[in-house]
Amino acid sequence: MLPREENEKLTRTGPGTPMGNLMRRYWIPALFSDQLPEPDGAPVRVKLLSEKLVAFRDTEGRVGLIDERCPHRTASLFFGRNEECGLRCVYHGWKFDIDGNCVDLPSEPWDKDFKRKIKITAYPCVERGGLVWAYMGPPELQPEFPALEWTCVPDPHRFVTRHIQECNWLQALEGGFDTSHLTFLHRGDEANADGVKLSLPLRYEVLPMDFGFVAGTCREGPHGQSFWTSSVMLMPFHKLISTSPIGAHAWVPIDDETTMNYCVEYWPDRPLSAEDLADSRESFFIHPELIAGTDRPVANRDNDYLIDRGLQKSGRSYTGIKGIGRQDCSIQESMGPIADRSIEHLGISDTVIIKLRRLLLQTLKDVDGGKSPPGLDPAAYLVRSGRFTLPADTRFEDAVDRLLRIKPAVPA
Amino acid sequence: MLPREENEKLTRTGPGTPMGNLMRRYWIPALFSDQLPEPDGAPVRVKLLSEKLVAFRDTEGRVGLIDERCPHRTASLFFGRNEECGLRCVYHGWKFDIDGNCVDLPSEPWDKDFKRKIKITAYPCVERGGLVWAYMGPPELQPEFPALEWTCVPDPHRFVTRHIQECNWLQALEGGFDTSHLTFLHRGDEANADGVKLSLPLRYEVLPMDFGFVAGTCREGPHGQSFWTSSVMLMPFHKLISTSPIGAHAWVPIDDETTMNYCVEYWPDRPLSAEDLADSRESFFIHPELIAGTDRPVANRDNDYLIDRGLQKSGRSYTGIKGIGRQDCSIQESMGPIADRSIEHLGISDTVIIKLRRLLLQTLKDVDGGKSPPGLDPAAYLVRSGRFTLPADTRFEDAVDRLLRIKPAVPA
Amino acid sequence: MLPREENEKLTRTGPGTPMGNLMRRYWIPALFSDQLPEPDGAPVRVKLLSEKLVAFRDTEGRVGLIDERCPHRTASLFFGRNEECGLRCVYHGWKFDIDGNCVDLPSEPWDKDFKRKIKITAYPCVERGGLVWAYMGPPELQPEFPALEWTCVPDPHRFVTRHIQECNWLQALEGGFDTSHLTFLHRGDEANADGVKLSLPLRYEVLPMDFGFVAGTCREGPHGQSFWTSSVMLMPFHKLISTSPIGAHAWVPIDDETTMNYCVEYWPDRPLSAEDLADSRESFFIHPELIAGTDRPVANRDNDYLIDRGLQKSGRSYTGIKGIGRQDCSIQESMGPIADRSIEHLGISDTVIIKLRRLLLQTLKDVDGGKSPPGLDPAAYLVRSGRFTLPADTRFEDAVDRLLRIKPAVPA
Repeated sequence: MLPREENEKLTRTGPGTPMGNLMRRYWIPALFSDQLPEPDGAPVRVKLLSEKLVAFRDTEGRVGLIDERCPHRTASLFFGRNEECGLRCVYHGWKFDIDGNCVDLPSEPWDKDFKRKIKITAYPCVERGGLVWAYMGPPELQPEFPALEWTCVPDPHRFVTRHIQECNWLQALEGGFDTSHLTFLHRGDEANADGVKLSLPLRYEVLPMDFGFVAGTCREGPHGQSFWTSSVMLMPFHKLISTSPIGAHAWVPIDDETTMNYCVEYWPDRPLSAEDLADSRESFFIHPELIAGTDRPVANRDNDYLIDRGLQKSGRSYTGIKGIGRQDCSIQESMGPIADRSIEHLGISDTVIIKLRRLLLQTLKDVDGGKSPPGLDPAAYLVRSGRFTLPADTRFEDAVDRLLRIKPAVPA
Repeated sequence: MLPREENEKLTRTGPGTPMGNLMRRYWIPALFSDQLPEPDGAPVRVKLLSEKLVAFRDTEGRVGLIDERCPHRTASLFFGRNEECGLRCVYHGWKFDIDGNCVDLPSEPWDKDFKRKIKITAYPCVERGGLVWAYMGPPELQPEFPALEWTCVPDPHRFVTRHIQECNWLQALEGGFDTSHLTFLHRGDEANADGVKLSLPLRYEVLPMDFGFVAGTCREGPHGQSFWTSSVMLMPFHKLISTSPIGAHAWVPIDDETTMNYCVEYWPDRPLSAEDLADSRESFFIHPELIAGTDRPVANRDNDYLIDRGLQKSGRSYTGIKGIGRQDCSIQESMGPIADRSIEHLGISDTVIIKLRRLLLQTLKDVDGGKSPPGLDPAAYLVRSGRFTLPADTRFEDAVDRLLRIKPAVPA
Repeated sequence: MLPREENEKLTRTGPGTPMGNLMRRYWIPALFSDQLPEPDGAPVRVKLLSEKLVAFRDTEGRVGLIDERCPHRTASLFFGRNEECGLRCVYHGWKFDIDGNCVDLPSEPWDKDFKRKIKITAYPCVERGGLVWAYMGPPELQPEFPALEWTCVPDPHRFVTRHIQECNWLQALEGGFDTSHLTFLHRGDEANADGVKLSLPLRYEVLPMDFGFVAGTCREGPHGQSFWTSSVMLMPFHKLISTSPIGAHAWVPIDDETTMNYCVEYWPDRPLSAEDLADSRESFFIHPELIAGTDRPVANRDNDYLIDRGLQKSGRSYTGIKGIGRQDCSIQESMGPIADRSIEHLGISDTVIIKLRRLLLQTLKDVDGGKSPPGLDPAAYLVRSGRFTLPADTRFEDAVDRLLRIKPAVPA
């Protein structure tokens, strides 16, 4: 259980909130690059961390991400004209470039200086791994883009989808690191999901790392050894999954009650094959079918995630809900828009959840005290989740760091 | 008119509210028994008095009614597995029996005691009259199930439906005991509704009784006698109607702005015939047609209850709204989600309404002072509404008690 | 930019608010006369300035506009019987005439005086120009109906439609007097809209007048003269447009986040021809196509006003949104339900907006201090917007008054 004040601290990500400030220190996935397919194409509405923004690709092909409201009279720039390296408000023709400068202000010909005084909030963007990423923090603290492996591999090596989860981001993150639910929630779907083990772990570890943290669960291995599964959390909301192909998630707050779940599969060293993609689609692993033209899954809370009680009864599926991603979503959303963690009862199997929260709270405190949060060194992201067998007398914390690190991928 | 504070007191029924506390002293209809048709079948969401719950029928056929949220991590037990005498959360396998005990806690094998410390809110249930009834109050104060006649007769003697009213419970209750509206609202439908009298009453009485109260309206009878119609209110929200077959309602708060209206017709001593049921359906007396798969009437506020202005104009119906139940619903909902009683203007014809509120407020005060509310003695419910002619010099209060009492029905 | 407190003052129009009090000093369009086509026909729900009302046409053909709630038990009078010069609540038969008197109270035969103590809020109504107008202010301050030209011409001279704007009334009003946006927002639609000029004005003036105010924009005319376009604002929310046929708007608050936009075209001296009407429809000038049975435009915020990005790209339309009225609506609604004016950046081209707000705030202050607001003298409305060329040395304020005044129209 978590006191209400701490729950608020961890779940709220709007401007000025502690967690919002923390997240704004990192590069954040904003949208797919192909949502802006061409220079001077249609702008796209984007909501990130409770901020209403508009993305556009300018004449030079660069992406801008600016406040949806024109600073003149607050009209929406979604309706704007995207032309000649700037987005122009259609109300009075004020035009802004991707850096937030007002580059044309035709309604005020009298005062040549007026234009220079006008700025719009604009967030630096880069494109990596098929996505547009934004940096929404203080300019003087802007980090380099991290060496997140899936963003570094050639496009054919990678498959990324996204969908909305109708709950707070922390429910999604906690769900991703809740190791003990694998034994229950997903039972019946093991064949489809590498990494799902039926036996409960013997021990749990969570270690703070320079990239965020690593959660380890220990089961009995052969010959008295320890079999460890490690899950990497890259600050502030990434997960790396030790599946084949390798999986990853980014749980990006749209607002405090809605989360965009980016879902990744990739091979570091080869293109995804037609079989890889077919497997991925058919098993409903992490890429749900969407309602056409939206980011909302077809199976959602309005239809009880298309639960099949007969299938649940049969025992072939623990939940009667088809697919691991959908199962996670149903449970995480069922806790409500923002879970009330003050009424929980946590045990040893929740060690990862408990420590994850403590690490996040500690990080908030550190940052408030002027410290840099983990993960700003781009090289820190050169890791993978993995599984490994250790001698019984080797401690996880002594071995794990070395085992997670990878070499930088060959640039695409 | 009722001061705002008193209106709040009478209308709010969530946990910890005065009226909520009072209602929780009684057995409350939760759902139909046949919504849980088989042991270990699908759980059903139930909202009662603003509490989100889940009902399930266990392996032994017993009904459980427990908090929707698992006490572990607040996931919804609606998605749970109903198996081997308990409902199991699909997130981590925690399992609860109908008494709220945690009977399996497989995610915490280390601490055998952990399970004993975990409880979930569980309300005792009984099945009577085709319904599941719950007791949501303090265990030490749990009363016997009341001898409510329609729950005691054999199934074929009884017909029960339910539908949602989109307003506070008190509007529905007051509508049920508002005797003077019969002369107006339902004009044109008298043929269908026994008990509807066109002439206004001469006198109104409301008497506190051991079961709740009785409202009496007096009209001139033959030979200078008094003709009394009595309406019985059984605490906390039941009404008995002196129709043939006998009618009854229970207005159960779902939350403060939504009410489940259970509608009953029954013969004490014989099965309902096909004609009885056909009459009931065709006259739209109290059983509205529902939108398939829901408890919402087809005629509702979104379509102005399918009002027919031509019919209203013709004078054949006072309202142009078809059926007495639908008429009541339209008027009660038209007062808003929670009627603002501070702006009313009440007269003599509102005597019943005025006294009913005073009795309810007095009961809240009594209970707050430690007294037992009326109606906890199960035998107190052995009454029927009725009509009777009294000599002019006989007072209603002196005669009514005797005239309402009935013998216990022969158990089915 | 406008401080939040002043924004609140200008935008809120419910009972008791400063702007609400001001608006209640004038006659306000409530509905179309033909929404009440016949005596004793069906009542119509009307929401005005956040008040829920019911309009009905009585047996004598007079229009009543009364509180939706019956003062007895707050049931909605929308369901009432409209008969014999009064609207009768169907709950208990209380009946009210158009003046708010209770003319029948059949449920209280005992007290003949009771009826006289009961009143319902009733607003005086008149019918002018095809509309029902209500006066919602203090009876002792009720003004004569103003000589608004379009209400005085014969019916065939006039075409009026209405539609809902999903934003506060002030956004609509400001949009109507924002002269500088004509150069931008509506570019590409000039052919359809007389009065749209591409060149930016050289100077802006706003003058308080006995009818409200006049906004003037000056452009260079021939021979060194000044070419002035004037736009008349008649208190509290009317605009007169110098188009051919003449245009007019009334932006009537439904509530603080919804506005009814009445849109008028008329000839003072001749009927509108089939061509006039066809032009008006086809150009989507100010009369949008509506969703059948509603006042909501087919093109609305849910479908991004059917924006055509290809058309916008082509340059043939600045916005890609078809029609001037729809363009205005899209931009005004895009500012949100109530625009946050505290974050604006206003310049010289916003002179009209700035002065308009100051005049409105000053009027609120004056009225609060006991002064009469402008426009209560009915003759003050005998004006038209217009354009005129002035010698360079003639000041707008010296010439404008004379140029706007018109003779009273010949009564229809």
